[in-house]
Amino acid sequence: MCRKSFVLSRGCLVGLVLLAAGAPGVENGPERSINRERVLARLDALALIGRTPEGGVSRVAFSEADIAGRDHILRLMNEAGLAVRVDPAGNLIGRREGNVAGLAPIVLGSHADTVPNGGRYDGALGVVAALECAEILRERGTTTRHPVEVVVFADEEGGLIGSRGMAGALDEAALAAVSQSGKTVGEGILALGGDPSRLAAAARRPGEIAAYLELHIEQGGVLESRAIPVGVVEGIVGIARWEVTVEGFANHAGTTPMEYRRDALLAAARFILAVNRVVTAEPGRQVGTVGRLTVEPGAVNVVPGQAILSLEIRDLSLEKVRAFFARIRRESEAIARETGTTFAFTALEETPPSPTDERLRGLVRDSGRELGLQTLDLPSGAGHDAQMIARIAPVGMIFIPSVAGISHSPREFSAAEDIANGARVLFSTLLKVDQAFGRL
Amino acid sequence: MCRKSFVLSRGCLVGLVLLAAGAPGVENGPERSINRERVLARLDALALIGRTPEGGVSRVAFSEADIAGRDHILRLMNEAGLAVRVDPAGNLIGRREGNVAGLAPIVLGSHADTVPNGGRYDGALGVVAALECAEILRERGTTTRHPVEVVVFADEEGGLIGSRGMAGALDEAALAAVSQSGKTVGEGILALGGDPSRLAAAARRPGEIAAYLELHIEQGGVLESRAIPVGVVEGIVGIARWEVTVEGFANHAGTTPMEYRRDALLAAARFILAVNRVVTAEPGRQVGTVGRLTVEPGAVNVVPGQAILSLEIRDLSLEKVRAFFARIRRESEAIARETGTTFAFTALEETPPSPTDERLRGLVRDSGRELGLQTLDLPSGAGHDAQMIARIAPVGMIFIPSVAGISHSPREFSAAEDIANGARVLFSTLLKVDQAFGRL
Repeated sequence: MCRKSFVLSRGCLVGLVLLAAGAPGVENGPERSINRERVLARLDALALIGRTPEGGVSRVAFSEADIAGRDHILRLMNEAGLAVRVDPAGNLIGRREGNVAGLAPIVLGSHADTVPNGGRYDGALGVVAALECAEILRERGTTTRHPVEVVVFADEEGGLIGSRGMAGALDEAALAAVSQSGKTVGEGILALGGDPSRLAAAARRPGEIAAYLELHIEQGGVLESRAIPVGVVEGIVGIARWEVTVEGFANHAGTTPMEYRRDALLAAARFILAVNRVVTAEPGRQVGTVGRLTVEPGAVNVVPGQAILSLEIRDLSLEKVRAFFARIRRESEAIARETGTTFAFTALEETPPSPTDERLRGLVRDSGRELGLQTLDLPSGAGHDAQMIARIAPVGMIFIPSVAGISHSPREFSAAEDIANGARVLFSTLLKVDQAFGRL
Repeated sequence: MCRKSFVLSRGCLVGLVLLAAGAPGVENGPERSINRERVLARLDALALIGRTPEGGVSRVAFSEADIAGRDHILRLMNEAGLAVRVDPAGNLIGRREGNVAGLAPIVLGSHADTVPNGGRYDGALGVVAALECAEILRERGTTTRHPVEVVVFADEEGGLIGSRGMAGALDEAALAAVSQSGKTVGEGILALGGDPSRLAAAARRPGEIAAYLELHIEQGGVLESRAIPVGVVEGIVGIARWEVTVEGFANHAGTTPMEYRRDALLAAARFILAVNRVVTAEPGRQVGTVGRLTVEPGAVNVVPGQAILSLEIRDLSLEKVRAFFARIRRESEAIARETGTTFAFTALEETPPSPTDERLRGLVRDSGRELGLQTLDLPSGAGHDAQMIARIAPVGMIFIPSVAGISHSPREFSAAEDIANGARVLFSTLLKVDQAFGRL
C-alpha cells in the first residue's frame, strides 16, 4: 500500500495530494456533497434498534440494544471502507488514512447510546453524519491530508465514559459505578469489546488528535425560535450541582396549628422560587434548575419534616455560576430564619466550562456562509463528548434546530432539511480543517 | 349472680344502687379516685410490646405486635372482672354490667394499634385509662346505673376500622383494602378474632350506646403552649383532601433557557405558598397542608414536567373548608396562566366534621373544675374513633397535653401528672354521665 510508504516516498505523497485536489464533487461545493436520502434512511434504520412503544428509542449504554446499535454501525463502517477497532475504553473507531505522513487524525464523533425512552437524533445524528463524511470521501476517492476517524463514544449518557477514557480521565471509581444497564461501567466496557484493564492505551495525548468535530441536535429551542439553521457552539457550559437538605419538623397535619409548624416543604417551595428569581434577575444564558425533590415523610396528613432537592446552575463562566450560588445561599438563610428550618448544601460534581476552539468556530461559520446558511453563536447547555476531548484537542461543535427544543423524549425531532444542512456543514468544515490544520 | 336477675328482681337492683351510693372512695372525690402508679406502669408495660430500637412503638394493626398487645389488654380486662368478647368487627370489648335494667352502656374506648414506629400514648392512654375506670369500680364494688364497656377498637390508624364497624359503616371495599400489615382488612379482622362475614352483628343502632367517652393525647401543642392540663374537645374537624396534578413540560435543564420553560415544580412551589397564604389569611384554627409531592421525571438535569401533590384542609366547619379551597383554586388558575402549566384537582375522601355532644362537654368541664384543673375548648385536628361513634351516639373527648405537640413519633410524650389528671377527669365524667344520662 502506498499508505505505508508515506514517510519514505515524497513522490507517492505528492501524487495523492494531487488526486485529492482533483477528486470529483469536492469542487462542486459541499452543498451537493452529502447524500441526504442515505443520511435520513440511516437515521430511520438506527431508530428501529431499541425502539419503544411510545416511538422513542432505548439504547441505554451497555444494554443489548446499545450493543446491537453499535454492531449495526460497525457494519456501516466496514461498508464505508473504514478500518474498524474498539479501543480499550469501549469506543468504536473507524479510520480512513490520510496522505500526509505524521498528521494526527481529525476525529468526527458522537454517541449511539440513549437515555431510556429517549429520542432518535441525540447522538445518532452525529454518528450518521460522520459516517456520511467517510462515505463521501470513499465514493469520490478523496483522500484527506489527515487521517479521518469516525468515533462512536461509549456510554455518553451515563457520564461521557468513552470520551473520558480517550481524554485519559476515566478512573477506577467510574469503572466501579453501576450504570443504568445494571452492569458496572467496567463490565459494560467489556461487553462493548473494550478492555478496562488497559484503559491507559485508550488515552490520547495532546497533539494526537488534530481536531475534533461533532454535529449534534441543539436539544434546546433557541435556533428554532430564531429560525436559524446552524448553531456555532461557543463552548459547553460549566455545571455546578448541589444537594440541598431542608430540615423542618414532621408533625401531625391535623393537630399542629399553622403558626407552630416548621414545614420543610414550605421552606423548599420558597427556595425554588428564590432560585428562579436570582437566576433570571440579570440578562444572560445562565440557567438554574431544581429538578429533584423528595419529601419526608411524604404523607397527606403529616407536615413535611424534611425536603431534599437538587440545585443545578449552568453557565459558560464558572465565576458567574459561583456568584449566582452565593446569592441563592444568602436567600436560603433568610428563608430558614423565617420558617424555623435549616438548609444544608452538599456540593456535588462541578464540571468546568469547555470552550470550543476559536479557529474551528470560524471554519464552521465559513462553511455556513458558503452554503447560504445563517449561523448563530450559542453555548451548549448540555454536556457532550466534545467537552472531554477539549481537554486534549481543539474541538468544534455544530448544532441544528430541535423542534420545540424537546430532547431526551420520544418527541425529540429535527427536520430533514436541517439534518441534511448539518451534515453538509460538518463535511465542509472537515475539508476546511483538513486544509487549514497541520500546516508547518 | 345478682347481675342475671336485674330484670326480675327490683329488690336486688335497689340493693346494688344503695351499695354503689355507699361505696368507699366515690364520695372522696375523683381526684383520689384513680391509681396513678398503676396507670403509668400499665402504659410502660404496653409500650414494651412492639417496642422499636428508636424507643417508639410499632403495633401496626393486625401485626403480631398488635395481637400481642390486645392479648395483654384482654388479660387485664379479665383481671378487672370484665366480661370479654371480640365483636365481629374485631373490637375487643370488656363489659361490666350496670344496675338499671334497660339502660344502654356507657362506652369508654380508644385503640391499641399504632402507626409504624409511633408513640406510646396515642390510643394506649385511652385504653389504659378506660381500664383504670373499670378497675376502680371493681375495687370499690361500685356498680354504675349503666353498663360500662371498655372498648379497644380495631385498626384505628388504618381508617377507624373497628369503630366504623360499630357504627355500621364498614363496607366490602374497606374489607378488601390491603392494610399496612400486608393483610387485607378482612383478613386482619379475622386474625383479631372478629368475623367479617357477620359485620352487621357488630353494628350498633342509635340508642344502643348511652354515651361514648375517649381520653386521648392532644397530638398538637395548643394545651402545652397555654399550660392548660385538660382539653374539652369541641369536635373532630372535617377533612377534605385533593390530589393536585401540575402539568408542565419536561425538558433538558441545560438546553432550555429560563424563559422557555414550563416548570411544573416551580408552579407547584407557588401553589404551596398560596395554600399557606390563603389558610393563614384569616383567624381561626383551620389548617391547610401539602404533605406529599412527587416530581417527574425527577432528575437533577431535567426541568420538571409534572408534579403531583396532596392538599388537605381541615376545619370544624365544612363550609369554611370549601371556601378556602375555592380561594386556593382561584390562585392556582393565576399560577397556571403565568407559568404555562395546568392544574387538575381530584377530590379524594371528604370527612364531615363530628361535633361532640354539648352535655358531655359540659360534664367534662364540670369534672375539670371540681378537680381544680383548668380546661380549654378546642377542636381535634386528628381523626379519632369518637368521630365514627358520633354517628350513632353522643360522644365526648378529653385531651391532655402532648409535649411539643409531637405525635406519631418515638418522641411522643405526655407528663405523668397530665396522664393521671386525664384519667381522673375521665373517671369523674363517667360517674357524672352515669347519673345524668338515662333518666326517665
